[in-house]
Amino acid sequence: MSTAARKAVQHRDEADVEFNRIVAFSDGVFAIAITLLVLALEVPRDTADLWQALRGLEDDLIAYALSFAVVGKFWLSHHRFYSGLERFDNTLMGLNLLYLAWVVLIPFSSELLGEFGSDRTSTIVYAANMAGASATFLVQILYAYGRGLVKPEALPMERRFAGPANFMFVGIFLASIGVAFVSVEAAQLMWLTVFLVGHRIADGLERLFRRGA
Amino acid sequence: MSTAARKAVQHRDEADVEFNRIVAFSDGVFAIAITLLVLALEVPRDTADLWQALRGLEDDLIAYALSFAVVGKFWLSHHRFYSGLERFDNTLMGLNLLYLAWVVLIPFSSELLGEFGSDRTSTIVYAANMAGASATFLVQILYAYGRGLVKPEALPMERRFAGPANFMFVGIFLASIGVAFVSVEAAQLMWLTVFLVGHRIADGLERLFRRGA
Amino acid sequence: MSTAARKAVQHRDEADVEFNRIVAFSDGVFAIAITLLVLALEVPRDTADLWQALRGLEDDLIAYALSFAVVGKFWLSHHRFYSGLERFDNTLMGLNLLYLAWVVLIPFSSELLGEFGSDRTSTIVYAANMAGASATFLVQILYAYGRGLVKPEALPMERRFAGPANFMFVGIFLASIGVAFVSVEAAQLMWLTVFLVGHRIADGLERLFRRGA
Amino acid sequence: MSTAARKAVQHRDEADVEFNRIVAFSDGVFAIAITLLVLALEVPRDTADLWQALRGLEDDLIAYALSFAVVGKFWLSHHRFYSGLERFDNTLMGLNLLYLAWVVLIPFSSELLGEFGSDRTSTIVYAANMAGASATFLVQILYAYGRGLVKPEALPMERRFAGPANFMFVGIFLASIGVAFVSVEAAQLMWLTVFLVGHRIADGLERLFRRGA
Repeated sequence: MSTAARKAVQHRDEADVEFNRIVAFSDGVFAIAITLLVLALEVPRDTADLWQALRGLEDDLIAYALSFAVVGKFWLSHHRFYSGLERFDNTLMGLNLLYLAWVVLIPFSSELLGEFGSDRTSTIVYAANMAGASATFLVQILYAYGRGLVKPEALPMERRFAGPANFMFVGIFLASIGVAFVSVEAAQLMWLTVFLVGHRIADGLERLFRRGA
Repeated sequence: MSTAARKAVQHRDEADVEFNRIVAFSDGVFAIAITLLVLALEVPRDTADLWQALRGLEDDLIAYALSFAVVGKFWLSHHRFYSGLERFDNTLMGLNLLYLAWVVLIPFSSELLGEFGSDRTSTIVYAANMAGASATFLVQILYAYGRGLVKPEALPMERRFAGPANFMFVGIFLASIGVAFVSVEAAQLMWLTVFLVGHRIADGLERLFRRGA
Repeated sequence: MSTAARKAVQHRDEADVEFNRIVAFSDGVFAIAITLLVLALEVPRDTADLWQALRGLEDDLIAYALSFAVVGKFWLSHHRFYSGLERFDNTLMGLNLLYLAWVVLIPFSSELLGEFGSDRTSTIVYAANMAGASATFLVQILYAYGRGLVKPEALPMERRFAGPANFMFVGIFLASIGVAFVSVEAAQLMWLTVFLVGHRIADGLERLFRRGA
Repeated sequence: MSTAARKAVQHRDEADVEFNRIVAFSDGVFAIAITLLVLALEVPRDTADLWQALRGLEDDLIAYALSFAVVGKFWLSHHRFYSGLERFDNTLMGLNLLYLAWVVLIPFSSELLGEFGSDRTSTIVYAANMAGASATFLVQILYAYGRGLVKPEALPMERRFAGPANFMFVGIFLASIGVAFVSVEAAQLMWLTVFLVGHRIADGLERLFRRGA
């Protein structure tokens, strides 16, 4: 296949089955990754006091809830981004696979965090996994944006929402790696900001980007 | 993204791909959660009398059958509810994710119940999981109802069926938590009522609601 | 919901999203169950002679191949049957869930067969699982046939193919349970007949049915 | 069903639901197989030095990355091939199932490779698995090609891309089995060629085929 052919951009309507398959495959991976999170919760065996044994799963449950929320948010962003796509090409499909490779790792990082909750290493691994996922998603957005693959009517929303929000995701997860060397608790608290004041930060970033444009 | 934009309600036909993805993602999670139930059935190792060893799986098989029936019923309800939806918004998608987070936990609770069948703690955990799932589903229904997201022609059916039936689900599972402190067997028998005389109770509730309306 | 409403038959075209969801959910369960078969192949740990250790997986590999073929065949039959459906109702959906409950058990029975290949008990459990799946599928077919849910143009094919073939499946798996009490090897060889001379037996049965009709 | 009926070729548009189900089922299997790769990464238990323990997972991570890339590439090829199909028949569906049986084995081979990275046996098993998958995919392509199931407009692309690229896949993986008897490292390096200079080799093969035609 010539380079030209390989780089061919396909319009979504002309290649409807193919577009739907990419989306369906991604959704499948998301659905499986989010459901595998439950495997981190190990049923206690041969215990005299089940209640006590279950309390030992507290950290695992917190990690489950956090990771479910994060993967859910990733899925919503992916969902919104692909609904705004007009066309796609092979590079975007490759970038999407790279992104999914990070998403699939989350059940591992999440189980690690549940098992070693207050440990520096598990905190860094978790943050690095999330930063990797956010960064490769951001690359997808910027690529699609730069190559003009986004529907005109979706552009303002992308510019206002998806861009800044994902810059923020990458920034917070990367920064939390550094913070973890000082305080593990502080690093983990930073992750919560994504959910609590994330919208405000994204709005602020958006105003900054607009001024710069 | 402004609050107005974020709360934008999308009509199902205008956003067909997006609507289908929510449904497909939910179906994926349901299908995986229901299939992971089999992982609770552990193949015996190094046993001289396999038949005897398999009889030790009896409780796990009962828990499997019960949970398959419950998740199946949840899926049918979800299926029916979403087929009656005309529009959706981001809040509903968030509520749906919250609901799925409870559904994904079921393989854990089910394995726990299979392992510690006659234990009070495992019975309470199972009931709490089901109550959490039913309650977050009920919130979805009430929200969609209140915001006018349901097709007009589906409204009577929702009002008569989905509402009362789900109130009953939440009520029975919550009540069985209390009952479990007195008798574990009685609590577990209550769950069967959902399947055996559930329709009658729902019909009674429906008459009550109609009178009140 | 009144009994009348609950038994409402929906035409496939009027309820396209709903019909597709049933099919998609079933496909999801099939895809997951068939993929979970790989979990029965356990990677050896801490072995000096890996080649020798892998030879110990021979029985597991045979069970994997057999079960993949059986689940694949089940899926093809399900695929063909649902493509010939014109309408569906709640009873059919319930029967389909019952059928899937047997399909989901296959990874367990398959792992059991791989672990205890020449054992009478594992052979009976495997045959019973397959008989349960085939029987509940046959019930679906007969129900859809009796209630007139099948497309007119698909009827002759159903009558000639699906009916006899599934009768044969149920018969062979049930008979192999009895045979297993005499000879485990003979019972397992019977399963192969489904794949080798299955078409001929189905053709014979079909002629018998036609003569009787 | 007569042999004639069983071999009936169905046009994609006449049998849209059925065609989509084959694709959806395949996508489901791909998505699950690629996500199960994460299960090879075992979370360390009861370790004093988590960082040290995680370094022991290095080989598993490399195997994960390699297998994710390979399965991703297989999926892309499958995606491209099926988007060029105009019709399908039962034989193609059977061949596709045979192909998927090899794909489902990849999480096992990948975990084996991660566990015994520098071992000859695990290298051969991995190469054999990939050769089996590539070969059964090639058979699908050649069959569809020979029976005229491919869209006319997709033919040149198939001839130029899919054919040669898959010949190369099969060749490299088969050859690496032989090479592994001399040097495990050399065999594993051969796999990288698929990703690094694969396009060039495929282009060369394509010119060869064209000259021969």
